[in-house]
Amino acid sequence: MSATAKPSADALADRRARAKAWFEDLRDRICLAFEALEDAADPALYPGEAGRFERTPWTRGDGGEDLGGGVMGMMHGRLFEKVGVHVSTVFGAFSPEFAARVRGAETDPRFYATGVSLIAHMRNPHVPAVHMNTRFITTTQSWFGGGMDLNPTQDYQRDKSFEDSVLFHQAAKAACDAHDPAYYSRFTDWCDEYFWLKHRQELRGTGGIFYDHLDTGDHDADFAFTRDVGEAFVKAYPQIVRTRMDTPWSDDDREEQLVRRGRYAEFNLLYDRGTKFGLETGGNINSILSSMPPHARWP
Amino acid sequence: MSATAKPSADALADRRARAKAWFEDLRDRICLAFEALEDAADPALYPGEAGRFERTPWTRGDGGEDLGGGVMGMMHGRLFEKVGVHVSTVFGAFSPEFAARVRGAETDPRFYATGVSLIAHMRNPHVPAVHMNTRFITTTQSWFGGGMDLNPTQDYQRDKSFEDSVLFHQAAKAACDAHDPAYYSRFTDWCDEYFWLKHRQELRGTGGIFYDHLDTGDHDADFAFTRDVGEAFVKAYPQIVRTRMDTPWSDDDREEQLVRRGRYAEFNLLYDRGTKFGLETGGNINSILSSMPPHARWP
Repeated sequence: MSATAKPSADALADRRARAKAWFEDLRDRICLAFEALEDAADPALYPGEAGRFERTPWTRGDGGEDLGGGVMGMMHGRLFEKVGVHVSTVFGAFSPEFAARVRGAETDPRFYATGVSLIAHMRNPHVPAVHMNTRFITTTQSWFGGGMDLNPTQDYQRDKSFEDSVLFHQAAKAACDAHDPAYYSRFTDWCDEYFWLKHRQELRGTGGIFYDHLDTGDHDADFAFTRDVGEAFVKAYPQIVRTRMDTPWSDDDREEQLVRRGRYAEFNLLYDRGTKFGLETGGNINSILSSMPPHARWP
Repeated sequence: MSATAKPSADALADRRARAKAWFEDLRDRICLAFEALEDAADPALYPGEAGRFERTPWTRGDGGEDLGGGVMGMMHGRLFEKVGVHVSTVFGAFSPEFAARVRGAETDPRFYATGVSLIAHMRNPHVPAVHMNTRFITTTQSWFGGGMDLNPTQDYQRDKSFEDSVLFHQAAKAACDAHDPAYYSRFTDWCDEYFWLKHRQELRGTGGIFYDHLDTGDHDADFAFTRDVGEAFVKAYPQIVRTRMDTPWSDDDREEQLVRRGRYAEFNLLYDRGTKFGLETGGNINSILSSMPPHARWP
């Protein structure tokens, strides 16, 4: 994709501030939606108190220079067994080795990255797990990236033709189609390519969309697309949760869920670029590994 | 270490056969010792039937050319929640990319590797998990490698001065000292260096010994040392199990165990060279990942 004409410093600062504000607003709305689902959960299936998000701010670096940081948002609820919705806004300079591998950082290692990331592991095995992330990154270039993918834990749901996946993909496709008729096809293929467990020759979930380095030359359009991905998530996922949350489950269903979560853990530790990057560069361990499943099985 | 003078083809075949036979004999003795512990487990703490090993042979490749294989031995018992004791003897030619990274295979990719490997995850959180592996590898060179390391799951045991670790290290040291006064110091440091979770800046367990490329020029001595490592394991670990197996445990102890097992899973997937090699080269997934914990937690 063609590079955006270089914006003025003021325009760039404005773009960063607007992206950051939007990711934080999306985080707030998602947390409210998830807490409302916690409240709505049937006590017969989900005993105990409805969960609430706890937010923990963190800063990058040793506290000297301001290198940014973020806010971890975690909920250990009755319906949401473990869910993290995090925002982070970090900046500074990449290490020389890393700068060489990042677009636009080869000659100038300074960067700014702001984003929201989310992973939900649900108590009910019939409610799929989900992952979503959107981000805005600037080096000497700037781009958006992100995506959303659905991760059912039960074999009968692990097919793109299953209604939850159909609904999820339809929402993602609508967000794509509003911006470019080529986006959905490209980004859903990219998702399947990325979330692939090579050693098992299987997909992690039933897909969705994944995109990176989105820089069409029209910043406002790219930002609007990224917002629409967030809106698609807010529209689709709570609806899927509501549809499935009243389905009772058996010990066998739970067992299947825990084994499937083991595969999720395998993906994160063996392949996920964000996890590997965070661990290799001494990021916030708690935040990076907050996506790991609360319980997993390798029978 | 100096390379062994090149043996004749007959001598090499004899070395391979004797190593293979010994690893299989060690496997048999370990399995019997573990099954005896299963039988001896107090039914008040360990309800249900005593477990027995199930052996599953597998072959490498597509069934055309003989590329060797192995026997997975798994027990899901009442005391041994999940234990694998595997032997494998594989041969053929490394891929060009891999051959370039293996000692003595740079100019001739043919190899032969025979070994035994073991990981035990115990039901009782007060009984440490353990890992042991010994192997004999030949390319244009030949060497032994392996080691044994203890993995307590409770913080009060996770110190080298705790009596189980003292006993385990003493057994390893005795095996080392009988062969070379420098071995223990070198191999126990190597163990701590290898089983290091860099992202958490912590050791996986309380160590033991780890060695590789052992080729002193005296094959019989190197083989005798490797046998003594196996004997040290057979002597030390069942004794530790017997000492701890009657200690009752609480839900909190179990929780601590499951969280610690999460770290074990992190090590295997992020760092373990054997796991990574096996997955990257299309090995037997079930066998490679049989070391993963039966239950793990990331709270």
